[in-house]
Amino acid sequence: MALIVQKFGGTSVGNTDKIKAVAERVLKSHKQGNRMVVVLSAMSGETDRLIRLAKDVQKIPDQRELDMIVSTGEQVTVALFAMAVKEAGYDAVSLLGDQVRILTSNLHTKARIKQIDSELISKHLDQGKVVVIAGFQGVTEAGDITTLGRGGSDTTAVALAAALKADACEIFTDVEGVYTTDPNVCKAARKINRITYDEMLELASLGAKVLDIRSVGLAKRYKVPVHVRSTFTENEGTWVVEEDKNMESMLVSGVTYSKNEARITINKVPDQPGVAAKIFLPISDAGIIVDMIIQNTRAGAMTDLTFTVLRSDYDRAMKLLREVAKEINAESVTGSEDIAKVSIVGVGMRNHSGIASTMFQILAKEGINILMISTSEIKVSCVIEEKYTELAVRALHDAFALDKDNVPSEEVI
Amino acid sequence: MALIVQKFGGTSVGNTDKIKAVAERVLKSHKQGNRMVVVLSAMSGETDRLIRLAKDVQKIPDQRELDMIVSTGEQVTVALFAMAVKEAGYDAVSLLGDQVRILTSNLHTKARIKQIDSELISKHLDQGKVVVIAGFQGVTEAGDITTLGRGGSDTTAVALAAALKADACEIFTDVEGVYTTDPNVCKAARKINRITYDEMLELASLGAKVLDIRSVGLAKRYKVPVHVRSTFTENEGTWVVEEDKNMESMLVSGVTYSKNEARITINKVPDQPGVAAKIFLPISDAGIIVDMIIQNTRAGAMTDLTFTVLRSDYDRAMKLLREVAKEINAESVTGSEDIAKVSIVGVGMRNHSGIASTMFQILAKEGINILMISTSEIKVSCVIEEKYTELAVRALHDAFALDKDNVPSEEVI
Repeated sequence: MALIVQKFGGTSVGNTDKIKAVAERVLKSHKQGNRMVVVLSAMSGETDRLIRLAKDVQKIPDQRELDMIVSTGEQVTVALFAMAVKEAGYDAVSLLGDQVRILTSNLHTKARIKQIDSELISKHLDQGKVVVIAGFQGVTEAGDITTLGRGGSDTTAVALAAALKADACEIFTDVEGVYTTDPNVCKAARKINRITYDEMLELASLGAKVLDIRSVGLAKRYKVPVHVRSTFTENEGTWVVEEDKNMESMLVSGVTYSKNEARITINKVPDQPGVAAKIFLPISDAGIIVDMIIQNTRAGAMTDLTFTVLRSDYDRAMKLLREVAKEINAESVTGSEDIAKVSIVGVGMRNHSGIASTMFQILAKEGINILMISTSEIKVSCVIEEKYTELAVRALHDAFALDKDNVPSEEVI
Repeated sequence: MALIVQKFGGTSVGNTDKIKAVAERVLKSHKQGNRMVVVLSAMSGETDRLIRLAKDVQKIPDQRELDMIVSTGEQVTVALFAMAVKEAGYDAVSLLGDQVRILTSNLHTKARIKQIDSELISKHLDQGKVVVIAGFQGVTEAGDITTLGRGGSDTTAVALAAALKADACEIFTDVEGVYTTDPNVCKAARKINRITYDEMLELASLGAKVLDIRSVGLAKRYKVPVHVRSTFTENEGTWVVEEDKNMESMLVSGVTYSKNEARITINKVPDQPGVAAKIFLPISDAGIIVDMIIQNTRAGAMTDLTFTVLRSDYDRAMKLLREVAKEINAESVTGSEDIAKVSIVGVGMRNHSGIASTMFQILAKEGINILMISTSEIKVSCVIEEKYTELAVRALHDAFALDKDNVPSEEVI
């Protein structure tokens, strides 16, 4: 008998028929004798509807009141779900973030979970109930309702699994699991059976949308085995787990890409102490997030600074930096929105030199020019011209033989 | 500086524009230096929408889960309202039933308020905020969300006014106040300036829909001055208050009627001890509410028992009673749905004999036959044929001179 946390997103519970279907699915595990905790998002479209209502009243909605409003989305889903379980003849109870006591920080709309009280959940589980918990929401020490931001329900699920010492946290989604790359770009893309927390963290931060990055970090910290799988099939999905020996055979686990970024270069910056701060302080003050930063020293105490920002921040950033460039006596600011970041991720590369250069060779062979490079222990990212994105992804997927399953697929639990 | 509780119903906050308008209205009082507590219902139609969703999942929705769902209606309105106040440049905070700690019984969908904690509200008022509280909802000792049933927001408002020792509880509605009778039936109907709790209780129980009867009972117990007034005008409405000397000049305060009842007679019942119980026990076991009961003794240890039930229960009651009649050897069961109850209400009649007989004379003069009579200290009700209802109301209104304002209309506060 296992304790399993299952999380279903907004499209999985998008209407009452889907809610009934998901309830049946949860009851299958329940009938096998498992203790079931279900985490749900709002019905798809509901959160957006509520935000529109709020913006209709207040252009920039008060964050506390906004949380009060949007948290009703999950409240409705969990109660409907508990009803569906009861209608099927089993017992269930719905609980909100403040009823469980999912204690969070005070940062409304982007709160962080500080503590979870597992007592009430355990009591209901002991009574044989399916416990249905509103994702995405928590409560402050003072009793105000908070929400956790985008992907918050994933975080709720993993945090609950950690607090309850669950045997697994299953994240249900509309794909079969985590893929070696985007199946829309590369037909040879293969579902990964097992992947490490660190690889998943890199994939999530590099553009893979299947799991929220905060939930992966939490899973890693508390060693929660996460199973990403499809709502619509019974197939095994992808297990996100701790590294083990079997995994080392795999040099590269996945290829990912992002088209959300733009590149900016400040040319001929006087190479003096404090210059970088003068450039990046106004940028961060404006809430613009900088990803890769590269500095090329020129001859004669001059340097070129190149970095990437989100494409949606590009115009604002360019405007800001033209002013900054004047102040610091840099020559000019140039930039481009037509770029993409292609990355390879794999724990195996830690013990193998030459993975990065293999990547550069593969791209060169296809005539793709590399504009920027950034590496970590388990990933290599290259910024290239956007038009080469799909070509690069397919070439890398093929060259690193990701279509071939080298990972043993035994059960984790 | 007064502490005022203002309650607005679903039609007053039916969309975001109306919410903004109501916020402006509340701010008028706030700017005059009053401490404002606002109680709101769900946006009109929202509660019904949520109940439909629930019934789509579970034919007879689980009551705890239903409360979880429908309580979101008020949650959205209060947060939108707080935003509207903030957008207008003032401070506000929304609070739910469980945040205030409006402690109720465990009877989901029909819970009763047991206790209200005024501390949090007072704290926010001290900080100069408009405090916006979700009507209709509370929380059990165990932390489950409850709702108070139909008219629950009126009850929330009056209970809060009592707990906060408010100077007044203003119930905003779509009419100007409480009328001497239904203006749709009698053009001479006049808005009553002041009425006692007892009169209002009788009026509410006899068919007047302007105030929920539970809230009137609560107002009476805690001596909360209630002001029923229009959302759409600035006019003074009706004050529901304790009896004072000025009121005694008014013999009759209002004429009301109800067409919701049906009359049943059990003919020739053997007049033995225990017979009444044999008749009314199965009726009450079936959840059928009996209003008036009249017993006429015939010659020869036989009696006729006549009583009224809700028209919607008529068929069920007739079927039940035909069986009962056989058992107790009564002759027959007869009944009629074409009846109406017309009542006059007034604290003044307590000290004046003859009000009832005046009523009978007025009806007789119009050729209206009285089928049943029921009296209390401050009301006389007559059951008549339904077709005479409007005629009776107008005749009584006219004969008791209700179109003339005899009540001094000085301010209560």
